Amino acid sequence: MNKNIFTFIGFDNEFEESQIVLFGAPFDGTTSFRPGTRFAPNIMRNDSFGLETYSPYLNKDLEDYMLFDSGDLDFPFGNPQRIIDMIKEHSKAIVNTGKIPFMIGGEHLVTLGSVQSVYEKYNDLHIIHLDAHADLREDYMGQKLSHATVLRRCHDFLGDGRIHQFGIRSGTKEEFTWAKDHVDMHPFSLDGLKEVIDELKDKPVYITIDLDVLDPSIFPGTGTIEPGGISFLELVGAFKEFSRLNNIVGMDAVELSPHYDQSGMSTAVACKVIREMALIAVK
Amino acid sequence: MNKNIFTFIGFDNEFEESQIVLFGAPFDGTTSFRPGTRFAPNIMRNDSFGLETYSPYLNKDLEDYMLFDSGDLDFPFGNPQRIIDMIKEHSKAIVNTGKIPFMIGGEHLVTLGSVQSVYEKYNDLHIIHLDAHADLREDYMGQKLSHATVLRRCHDFLGDGRIHQFGIRSGTKEEFTWAKDHVDMHPFSLDGLKEVIDELKDKPVYITIDLDVLDPSIFPGTGTIEPGGISFLELVGAFKEFSRLNNIVGMDAVELSPHYDQSGMSTAVACKVIREMALIAVK
Amino acid sequence: MNKNIFTFIGFDNEFEESQIVLFGAPFDGTTSFRPGTRFAPNIMRNDSFGLETYSPYLNKDLEDYMLFDSGDLDFPFGNPQRIIDMIKEHSKAIVNTGKIPFMIGGEHLVTLGSVQSVYEKYNDLHIIHLDAHADLREDYMGQKLSHATVLRRCHDFLGDGRIHQFGIRSGTKEEFTWAKDHVDMHPFSLDGLKEVIDELKDKPVYITIDLDVLDPSIFPGTGTIEPGGISFLELVGAFKEFSRLNNIVGMDAVELSPHYDQSGMSTAVACKVIREMALIAVK
Amino acid sequence: MNKNIFTFIGFDNEFEESQIVLFGAPFDGTTSFRPGTRFAPNIMRNDSFGLETYSPYLNKDLEDYMLFDSGDLDFPFGNPQRIIDMIKEHSKAIVNTGKIPFMIGGEHLVTLGSVQSVYEKYNDLHIIHLDAHADLREDYMGQKLSHATVLRRCHDFLGDGRIHQFGIRSGTKEEFTWAKDHVDMHPFSLDGLKEVIDELKDKPVYITIDLDVLDPSIFPGTGTIEPGGISFLELVGAFKEFSRLNNIVGMDAVELSPHYDQSGMSTAVACKVIREMALIAVK
Amino acid sequence: MNKNIFTFIGFDNEFEESQIVLFGAPFDGTTSFRPGTRFAPNIMRNDSFGLETYSPYLNKDLEDYMLFDSGDLDFPFGNPQRIIDMIKEHSKAIVNTGKIPFMIGGEHLVTLGSVQSVYEKYNDLHIIHLDAHADLREDYMGQKLSHATVLRRCHDFLGDGRIHQFGIRSGTKEEFTWAKDHVDMHPFSLDGLKEVIDELKDKPVYITIDLDVLDPSIFPGTGTIEPGGISFLELVGAFKEFSRLNNIVGMDAVELSPHYDQSGMSTAVACKVIREMALIAVK
Amino acid sequence: MNKNIFTFIGFDNEFEESQIVLFGAPFDGTTSFRPGTRFAPNIMRNDSFGLETYSPYLNKDLEDYMLFDSGDLDFPFGNPQRIIDMIKEHSKAIVNTGKIPFMIGGEHLVTLGSVQSVYEKYNDLHIIHLDAHADLREDYMGQKLSHATVLRRCHDFLGDGRIHQFGIRSGTKEEFTWAKDHVDMHPFSLDGLKEVIDELKDKPVYITIDLDVLDPSIFPGTGTIEPGGISFLELVGAFKEFSRLNNIVGMDAVELSPHYDQSGMSTAVACKVIREMALIAVK
Repeated sequence: MNKNIFTFIGFDNEFEESQIVLFGAPFDGTTSFRPGTRFAPNIMRNDSFGLETYSPYLNKDLEDYMLFDSGDLDFPFGNPQRIIDMIKEHSKAIVNTGKIPFMIGGEHLVTLGSVQSVYEKYNDLHIIHLDAHADLREDYMGQKLSHATVLRRCHDFLGDGRIHQFGIRSGTKEEFTWAKDHVDMHPFSLDGLKEVIDELKDKPVYITIDLDVLDPSIFPGTGTIEPGGISFLELVGAFKEFSRLNNIVGMDAVELSPHYDQSGMSTAVACKVIREMALIAVK
Repeated sequence: MNKNIFTFIGFDNEFEESQIVLFGAPFDGTTSFRPGTRFAPNIMRNDSFGLETYSPYLNKDLEDYMLFDSGDLDFPFGNPQRIIDMIKEHSKAIVNTGKIPFMIGGEHLVTLGSVQSVYEKYNDLHIIHLDAHADLREDYMGQKLSHATVLRRCHDFLGDGRIHQFGIRSGTKEEFTWAKDHVDMHPFSLDGLKEVIDELKDKPVYITIDLDVLDPSIFPGTGTIEPGGISFLELVGAFKEFSRLNNIVGMDAVELSPHYDQSGMSTAVACKVIREMALIAVK
Repeated sequence: MNKNIFTFIGFDNEFEESQIVLFGAPFDGTTSFRPGTRFAPNIMRNDSFGLETYSPYLNKDLEDYMLFDSGDLDFPFGNPQRIIDMIKEHSKAIVNTGKIPFMIGGEHLVTLGSVQSVYEKYNDLHIIHLDAHADLREDYMGQKLSHATVLRRCHDFLGDGRIHQFGIRSGTKEEFTWAKDHVDMHPFSLDGLKEVIDELKDKPVYITIDLDVLDPSIFPGTGTIEPGGISFLELVGAFKEFSRLNNIVGMDAVELSPHYDQSGMSTAVACKVIREMALIAVK
Repeated sequence: MNKNIFTFIGFDNEFEESQIVLFGAPFDGTTSFRPGTRFAPNIMRNDSFGLETYSPYLNKDLEDYMLFDSGDLDFPFGNPQRIIDMIKEHSKAIVNTGKIPFMIGGEHLVTLGSVQSVYEKYNDLHIIHLDAHADLREDYMGQKLSHATVLRRCHDFLGDGRIHQFGIRSGTKEEFTWAKDHVDMHPFSLDGLKEVIDELKDKPVYITIDLDVLDPSIFPGTGTIEPGGISFLELVGAFKEFSRLNNIVGMDAVELSPHYDQSGMSTAVACKVIREMALIAVK
Repeated sequence: MNKNIFTFIGFDNEFEESQIVLFGAPFDGTTSFRPGTRFAPNIMRNDSFGLETYSPYLNKDLEDYMLFDSGDLDFPFGNPQRIIDMIKEHSKAIVNTGKIPFMIGGEHLVTLGSVQSVYEKYNDLHIIHLDAHADLREDYMGQKLSHATVLRRCHDFLGDGRIHQFGIRSGTKEEFTWAKDHVDMHPFSLDGLKEVIDELKDKPVYITIDLDVLDPSIFPGTGTIEPGGISFLELVGAFKEFSRLNNIVGMDAVELSPHYDQSGMSTAVACKVIREMALIAVK
Repeated sequence: MNKNIFTFIGFDNEFEESQIVLFGAPFDGTTSFRPGTRFAPNIMRNDSFGLETYSPYLNKDLEDYMLFDSGDLDFPFGNPQRIIDMIKEHSKAIVNTGKIPFMIGGEHLVTLGSVQSVYEKYNDLHIIHLDAHADLREDYMGQKLSHATVLRRCHDFLGDGRIHQFGIRSGTKEEFTWAKDHVDMHPFSLDGLKEVIDELKDKPVYITIDLDVLDPSIFPGTGTIEPGGISFLELVGAFKEFSRLNNIVGMDAVELSPHYDQSGMSTAVACKVIREMALIAVK
């Protein structure tokens, strides 16, 4: 009898042979309103078995690709910096073997570690960021490391013009003002995505999707609910654009808080997002 | 058949005088992911009293027509074939008196019995099938009779070109491939419905609506959630097209699993679908 | 009036200096299907702290304006007339100081008291009414004062042509017929709103929003669910039109029943509606 | 009265031949905290089919007795007095044929109508009252007719010494003080029940059970939750005592609010209580 | 990087070295009222990480013993006999290596396969059965294989006097009558357990715990709720008695339906039951 | 301190005149399993209005005493030490005016700050600690400051023999072993409480109640569920014992996580605990 193996559906190959390495980052320590994203990776693995491996949108099947799920990182409590460092280290081990790290959050702060690991290899990195929130504060309630500051922290080392934001519909007036000079923000919708993809086609790109970019009607299971988001089909449209990118070097999908949606819909949506993202990144 | 005092709203006439006979088929024995559709018919009857009998979309009122609710079939356990036979027999008794059988599921497999009963009278039957899933597998986990094979089983006797599918957005690669040669599949949306209705205008048509054709944002209360569905208003648009059909000979609406949506929204949606469907079938 | 320390976010100024005075009317005594709107005002105050004070839609911030929250009215049981009188009296105290009363329901009947208070000052009052339901019955189950009759009761003293309804998608045939001769009803959508705003630009206008005008996919937390509603972004579009009105003299938002939506989404939506409505009314 | 096909399990005999007549009184118009008991009777009928008809506690089976379910009363809105009158009239029609009225609430105020109907026939009536709350206020928020005053209203015509209360654990200081002189109150538990039954053995007795007498651990689905209640087995013990009564002339079980307990446990408990109460009353 | 391993907490040893082999049997195909036990094993594994490995009741720690979790059986649909055969085969492979099979249900029918596998080796097998329901029907709705007949099917080959039932509080009159002559039934409570353990001390014993033996106040997450059950501490008392058995040869715990208890309590209880049962079986 | 208009019921006096000062400590930053206690204080204030101010258990009424609610502390993120310091400072301001601080958690770590503030004044302080968990670890996942270490941290300055624990039923083997030499632990139940109260009668005592000492059947709304707890009536019995203490110098009640119990029962229980605790501390 074999030991029990529990992976996201279709991510059941060996590490060495795989193109993409999935891992969970179950951290929600800076969540300001409703915590719970720590539960997302395992609940997604469980519910992923309600999903077909075939995507009719992309006409591709997870079973035709080599994909690996390395499980969840095991975090200590209390120190966001240490968690970011652990993520960075784990992700670097993936990047260094030429594979694509694909992280499931957790809250959005976890993106910082993963982006850092990729940036060390790709100095000309661009980030495509889909989110309801700008996440561009200099600090949040006195903290530099927060889900509300994470893209600002990425800007600290990436500099101007490298962060491309879509779907943003909530933030402080300061964030919206600061964004004008430093990042490429497309508020409210995905307008302009095609042009951005044209421009980034051959550049190394990290894609970070805060799932709350989706309208809460289809994704209520998240910490801070912001009506007025994009539809699932609009997100599928974005994925089709993403599939024109030739150099996706890292990805994540964050901020599912499954307990806040007892219908299971938000988790089902997140699982399908994982499937589509994997299928656009594999070649 | 005795008159049932606990009926769907407006379905309170006598059997003999009615055009449409509603009945419940509370079976979910082959549900692979999340069971619970067995509870749908009674919960819909109960919540239907929160519904107006008048449809402003169609400018018609249930109270102006003769409609009968014959209650739920009382199923034994364990043998899908026997359940299909019971449905067929009940539905045949309705068809034979020239009335329209209108079945509330239960899971989608129940459609097989109802279609069989209608097909015996109308050999040139066409099916209009709205669903998130193709339901075209040859077998599912070794079973020929399953919610995932039901339209394939209908194809077994109807043959090519008689099944018109809309809104399909999930299935195996094999189903999508097979569909190209054997059924009239319109994936993802209702595109092409107008033309199909033009063509079927005077033919005998059975309408089967797997309610998960709707986007889970408006209909999360179902076993297998598939984001990217049609909106309620798009479905109302389809109903307006359906009202051009001159020979609707049977109908069903299936796959509400009410416990998975505690807001009651999915049940309210299903009730309104029943009202609209009844109003397009009565003349 | 004492200052309330537990206020809706941003409504923390003094009464005297404020332009808008918010108050809760936690009454649901005539609710026919699912009661619970009595809980809305306090749950909204609590959850409003998950909301940013800045609106990127309007580029305005609650913190830049003077706003006051006078808390909830404390109602006795059983007598709808007395509750309407209490609301009228409270609202009149606000109107008389030249401020704008902004009421959070409670069921829709509470609108009657608030409209009466405003009408005493503005005889040429118009009402803009967004709702899923017409609320135009002459009586409901024998009662003249009901959530289902409230706009009819307003018509009793306002007369023809003063009530402008949008988004209506449910009612009896009689209501829809009566509406043609007496009110300006725009069923199903917001079509025609621009023209109505053009016409009412300089007239005194009371805005009443039954939140169930929104599609239940984004607002399931209400007593009577009606699919086919408008989206949140369509409502934001309406707010942009409203901001062209020069004389908003009263407002309300009613019919959140928070317990029916355990994800908290409906409450979050209602809070954002309050923010946007306040920002269009302040000058 | 017509036969209702949708009945509580086992209550499927004809009116004329039955000893007990069940009916629903879906009223919650004076509920002060959390409304919703209006939904109880129908949800209980539905879930009663998960119940065995045989009671191993009493070694009796519902199927061995003649029992009738006359359905729910259809109430207008707003006027508690009129609702009480309707209940009284319906219950009187049962009492006058020598049958036992058995009412399912609804809130506790409905008991008043049923007790009045019985009192007209039995002037020496005693009430056994199990409840968490004393319900002995002279008025509640200015109202004489309220769930919080209902036993006081019964006292108005029954007088001192006729009301025997058990399990009471919540009320005002005034209620507890007043009770000492006017009713036979046994606070907190069922202590003393045996002696009371001994005394009332041959007298006409009306039993009213506010289901919140049970501990909320087993019955959370109610409007006002009071920990420290009796266990289900203690209630079964009480039923065994009740079965020594020779002249039960009326009964009710009230205050299930099913939506507040999504596990269905409270409804299952209420259904079993109905079964046991029926079996102790039939001879 | 290792592949991801997902076991019940503490069951992380190798098969060969382990005394107990846990496995999941996620079948609920004959469930008559509320299905959902198919989800139990995986949700229990997930939530088991909220549990301490140390039992203060037994002063033993899972980490001090060799325990293996072989994952879930992968069942086809529709044929209960085939599922029982698969369980029997899997369990036999465990029994044949001298280890103790420990099955997590699923519905109670799964017990049949596991008992059969043990019986082949131990002809003098006794069953200790804790349950709310007798499960002794000859057939249920025409089916011989059902959760409601499972102990009767065990009796078919074990014969009289081998089944010792405790806590039974629901069934038909026939079951209770039949039990008197054929099984050792202790209704309502655990009374008599000590004596039974004395008697079975050195005999091969299979323990089957239908978790609904617990009162629904502590275990509402099950298909058929029966108030009046035993408390968790009474069950712990039973476990202490069980620890005097010298030859436990098989065990199971069945009928958790986790979706019906959204607090997670029922799952937490089931996890602790697994811990305690494992610790009494290891030596 | 300003008067807070939104207070716990009955805590509406002025600070200066009050004996007890309630405050909320909405922190859950070290919660290891299910976070959410940060929501407790405000939800308790809201639901406290479903509570009577009179306690029939103690025959005392909140309205007869002077009680003040100073609202919630407003915490920054991420640094447990800073949060403890803020609590200590706030509590000290209360202690220094001779009043009794009464804190509502939040997770159990908050107790450390409050105990420190009291200890500075009362060096001979004893703690009575009711809890399911020992909370005696030297560190938890590398952190010294954690909900799982809080009583150990209190022991750091109080020393042996000052901590009296009751109801403990979960922990590591090390905690239970360490406890034997350093604290006065009464596992599983309240046995021995009477004797401890006799001994501490005239000493300064701080009472900390982790509400999960209650059985989850009555209190499922908490982060880590442990069946086998005490009943509400046993807790009321403890309160009667506590009322013999002559020098209660501080109190808290922690670990309600209201979102995990949607029935509202856990919050109702917590509110009643606050009422009873206040009434035993006032003289």
